[in-house]
Amino acid sequence: MHTSSVTIVKLGGKLIDQPDRLSQSLQSFASITGYKILVHGGGVFATRVAEQMGISAPMVKGRRITDHAMMDVAVMVYSGKVNTTIVGLLQSMGVNALGVTGADLNLISAHQRPKGDIDYGLAGDIDNVNVGMLSKLLNLGISPVFAPITHNNQGQLLNTNADTIASTVSRYLADRFDVNLIYCFDKIGVLEDPLKAESLIPEIDLSMYRELISKGVIKEGMIPKLDNAFEALTQGVKNVYICSSDEIHNISTTKFTGTHIYI
Amino acid sequence: MHTSSVTIVKLGGKLIDQPDRLSQSLQSFASITGYKILVHGGGVFATRVAEQMGISAPMVKGRRITDHAMMDVAVMVYSGKVNTTIVGLLQSMGVNALGVTGADLNLISAHQRPKGDIDYGLAGDIDNVNVGMLSKLLNLGISPVFAPITHNNQGQLLNTNADTIASTVSRYLADRFDVNLIYCFDKIGVLEDPLKAESLIPEIDLSMYRELISKGVIKEGMIPKLDNAFEALTQGVKNVYICSSDEIHNISTTKFTGTHIYI
Repeated sequence: MHTSSVTIVKLGGKLIDQPDRLSQSLQSFASITGYKILVHGGGVFATRVAEQMGISAPMVKGRRITDHAMMDVAVMVYSGKVNTTIVGLLQSMGVNALGVTGADLNLISAHQRPKGDIDYGLAGDIDNVNVGMLSKLLNLGISPVFAPITHNNQGQLLNTNADTIASTVSRYLADRFDVNLIYCFDKIGVLEDPLKAESLIPEIDLSMYRELISKGVIKEGMIPKLDNAFEALTQGVKNVYICSSDEIHNISTTKFTGTHIYI
Repeated sequence: MHTSSVTIVKLGGKLIDQPDRLSQSLQSFASITGYKILVHGGGVFATRVAEQMGISAPMVKGRRITDHAMMDVAVMVYSGKVNTTIVGLLQSMGVNALGVTGADLNLISAHQRPKGDIDYGLAGDIDNVNVGMLSKLLNLGISPVFAPITHNNQGQLLNTNADTIASTVSRYLADRFDVNLIYCFDKIGVLEDPLKAESLIPEIDLSMYRELISKGVIKEGMIPKLDNAFEALTQGVKNVYICSSDEIHNISTTKFTGTHIYI
């Protein structure tokens, strides 16, 4: 047990794209008492802005690559439009928000993913989280808001998955704080059938997770999210929740509707 | 005399647009000892991105108006691309930079300029600078980097002139620190003839300034810059310099080549 707790919320997908849902999700974030950190994705804006600018990501072996032009778009959209808009809204809700990328205060340093069979372009794998500085910000009553951008300490900005930022920051902070990590998205939790809300899986521990994967119940996009969740838990994070942003204030109550992940 | 001094540098125009000159200017900024703050403009990028996206600022009575679409572009370019790039470069030079807009930590609150005969659109006039929080950041060894964006505390981001941000932040900090304000641009200082470097005016005080305006020597874009400078000086800022970024480290020496403004 640490003396302070931190709640880290990742907001993704359609929660970012739609002004009403974004505002509602930020109200839920604002209602969290104690230290809190927000991590956001970019939604569909980056693709839309790239299209408007006549830029398209090069495809190599069927994968989209973050080249310099796409990196510029990612920085403009994630760290410019989305991050600054969120900070402005949170300030209007009384949260002392500070928008950051990994370059700010050297909060998250990374290296460009090595080119093997696949060239990932300007994708950044995290080397370090500046826990000392992050703790100082939290202790000043500041709520950092992370855009999914890191840097390599040599002036190059890098694209880093927002789920990975959320889980990595959580793991580093777990040395000093009791950390709860909440992944909010546009479904109510992990579902056995993605189309049926009533197929919600309320709790998953590691043995259940292995069973659900082997049965093919959990697949595709949910696997990296859950891998991130279990990696965070094995490294000291107390609880991970996957849920709708409406459930943020219910996470430690019996009213909670969503998926609680623990080991 | 205060116990600490702060140097506030405004970087504008072509210094932002050209990677080599930007890097050189940031090296000069990095060489400043003691507390420092950078304020940057947007250069030509905003116009270029707006053109690429097929957006053009509406013209009303011959003036460009910042409408919502142009405000989106300004936020993407100033607070996204330009600010984040500068922060990444400064971190690589050993400066503990933190990119901010006025919305971050509520550092600069503003109101939308009232519509009179002219509709300025989403232009923000500054109401307050959060000196307490800014001082905390400086005392932690952090160098804030301001993009020219403010907010109205109700979730609306606003466009605010970078020269005005630099002089207003300087004035507010003058209560607690000895403040030097440096406007760096692509000329060597205030020139009698904009085309001749040898016509540099090395010093300007208030009576000289009035004389230079009445003779028509100082005109157009230089007048608001100098008005900002004298407003800062009358409110406690120690010195203002207008010079090339190469001269930053010479400001208090006899080697200085640029314009020193004082009252």
